[in-house]
Amino acid sequence: MASTPAPIAGIWPALLTPLTASLDIDHDAFARHAHSLLAAGCAGVTPFGTTGEGPSFSVAERRAAIDALIERGVPASRILVATSCAALPETVELTRHATQVGAAGALVLPPFFFKGVSDQGIIDGYRWVIDRVADPRLKLMLYQIPQVTGVALSHHVIRTLLDQYPGTIIGLKDSACQREVSLAYAGAFMPPMQVWVGNEPDVPTMAGLGTLGAVSGVANVMPRLTRRLVEEHASPDIDRHVQRMRDFIAILGGYGMTAAFKGMMAILTGEPGWRRVRPPLVALDEAEFNRLAAQFQAFALDRDNE
Amino acid sequence: MASTPAPIAGIWPALLTPLTASLDIDHDAFARHAHSLLAAGCAGVTPFGTTGEGPSFSVAERRAAIDALIERGVPASRILVATSCAALPETVELTRHATQVGAAGALVLPPFFFKGVSDQGIIDGYRWVIDRVADPRLKLMLYQIPQVTGVALSHHVIRTLLDQYPGTIIGLKDSACQREVSLAYAGAFMPPMQVWVGNEPDVPTMAGLGTLGAVSGVANVMPRLTRRLVEEHASPDIDRHVQRMRDFIAILGGYGMTAAFKGMMAILTGEPGWRRVRPPLVALDEAEFNRLAAQFQAFALDRDNE
Repeated sequence: MASTPAPIAGIWPALLTPLTASLDIDHDAFARHAHSLLAAGCAGVTPFGTTGEGPSFSVAERRAAIDALIERGVPASRILVATSCAALPETVELTRHATQVGAAGALVLPPFFFKGVSDQGIIDGYRWVIDRVADPRLKLMLYQIPQVTGVALSHHVIRTLLDQYPGTIIGLKDSACQREVSLAYAGAFMPPMQVWVGNEPDVPTMAGLGTLGAVSGVANVMPRLTRRLVEEHASPDIDRHVQRMRDFIAILGGYGMTAAFKGMMAILTGEPGWRRVRPPLVALDEAEFNRLAAQFQAFALDRDNE
Repeated sequence: MASTPAPIAGIWPALLTPLTASLDIDHDAFARHAHSLLAAGCAGVTPFGTTGEGPSFSVAERRAAIDALIERGVPASRILVATSCAALPETVELTRHATQVGAAGALVLPPFFFKGVSDQGIIDGYRWVIDRVADPRLKLMLYQIPQVTGVALSHHVIRTLLDQYPGTIIGLKDSACQREVSLAYAGAFMPPMQVWVGNEPDVPTMAGLGTLGAVSGVANVMPRLTRRLVEEHASPDIDRHVQRMRDFIAILGGYGMTAAFKGMMAILTGEPGWRRVRPPLVALDEAEFNRLAAQFQAFALDRDNE
C-alpha cells in the first residue's frame, strides 16, 4: 500500500533565473537569490516554472543549474523543480534527475505544444512520466497554466491520477487564475491533495480551505507579504494584506511579468544584470525600467517595508 | 554580398513519424515511408513538424532519426528538417545538425511556450538561432502555426529577418490557414521568399502568385493529388483537384489530424503499428478506425486512384 506523503507547505517562490551577459544562467546569482529567499522565511524555491522561463532553457542547462544550486548550499529538499518539457522523454530525464538529487518534488505540466488534447492524452502523458521515472521517492505536483499552454486539467484527469498514484501526486499548482475553478478543485481534492493557486490574492481563501502554501512569482520580490497570505489568513489584518498584494499586482500588469519581476530584482539588488531575459521574452527598455522603478519604490522602499 | 539561394520547390510531406510498440521512433518504417514518398514524386520530406509530432520527441531522438533516414539512403538534400524547440539552445543544436549533415534546410517556429510575445522577442529568437548556428550553408524556412503556438509572424518580423539574412531565409511555411493572410505574405515577400501554405486547397491560388511547393500533411497519404495542386494549378482541371482535396480534408475533420493520417497509413500499408501516436495525442479507437477506413476506402481505394 502506498503511504500518504507528508503535505507540502509554505511559500516556494517561482524562482526567477538570472542571466549572464551571454544570456546563460548565472549560477552564482541564482544561488544567492535562492539563499536570500530561504533567509526570508520561504519554505523552498521552485526553479524553471513559467515565471522562471523554464521552457526557454535546455535540458542540459536545467540539470546543471539544479546541481549548481545544491553545490552552492541550497538543500535539495528545499527545491521543488519544475521539470516540464514538450517532449516526454525530456520531462522524464529532468524529473528523474530531480528525484535522484533529493529534491522536494517535481512540478509537471502536461506536454505543452499541442492544443485541444484529450483527457486521455493528458493522463497518458503523466503516466509516461511517473511510470518511466519509476522511483518511489518521486513526489509530483500537477501544474496547469492553460492561458499559456492551452491545456487544462479536468477533475477526471486529477481523480484518475490520484487514484492510480496516491503516494506520488502531492498537489496541484493551479495557475489558471480563475477563482471558481480553484475552489472547485479544493472541494474535490483537498485533502488528500494540496491545491495551490497562482493568483496570490486568492491564497487566503484557499488557506481557509486547507491550502498550506504557494508557488508564487510575487514571492521573488515580496516573500514576506506572500507568506502572510498563508500564515495570517485568519487574521483580522488579512484584507489589508490582500489589498496590498492587489496593488502590487496592478503595478506588474503594465509590463511583461517576468521582465517586470527581473526589473524589480535589479532595483532590490543593485545588479543591473538582473534585467536580462532570454528570447522570446524582451527585457524592459529604459523608459519602462525607470517608470517601474518609480512605481516600485513608491510601493515599498525595501523588503522590510513589505 | 550574400548570394540569392535557389528557390526551394515541390511537395515536401510533413512526414508522419511511425512508432514501435514502446512508442519510440521506428527508424526502418520512417525510412520506408520517406522512400515511398520520394518514389511518388515528392521533392523531399519534412520530418518533425506539427503533423509529425516533432515537439513530442527529444533532441536526441530527433537527431538520431535524421541520421537514420540518411543511413537508410534518403538523401540529406531531400530532407527539410523541422528543428523547432521551446528552448533556443536546442533549436540551435538541431538546426546545426541539419545543416552539418547537408539537409535542404531547417523549418523553424519561434519558441512556442510563451504567448503574447512581441515582434522584438521573435526577431531576437530567430537571430539567436541563425547567429549561433553561424554556418553560411544554413537555409531557414520560417514557420508559423499560431492556432497551436499562439505566436504569429508579422510582416515587420519577416521584413527585418529578410533584410538581415537575405541568403539564409528561403521561405515561410504559413500554417495559419487564413487565405487572406497568406495572400498578403505573398504580395509582400514573394519573391524573394517562397510562401508555402498549410491549407492545401489554397495551393493553386498561391502557385499562381509564384509558390513553387508545399510542406503538406495530406501529402503523406495523397502525394500525387497534392502535387497536382502545384504542377497543374493553371490547368482547366484544377477546380476538380481542389474539390477532391476539400473532400479529403472533410474526412480528416472528424478526427485528430495526426491520428487520422496515421490511421490512413495503417490502411495503406497494412501495418497496424502505424496507428500509434505519442502522448499527449491519442490513437484512433477501434470504432473511429473502422469508420475512417470506410470513409477513406470510399474516397480512394489506393494511391493510384488519387
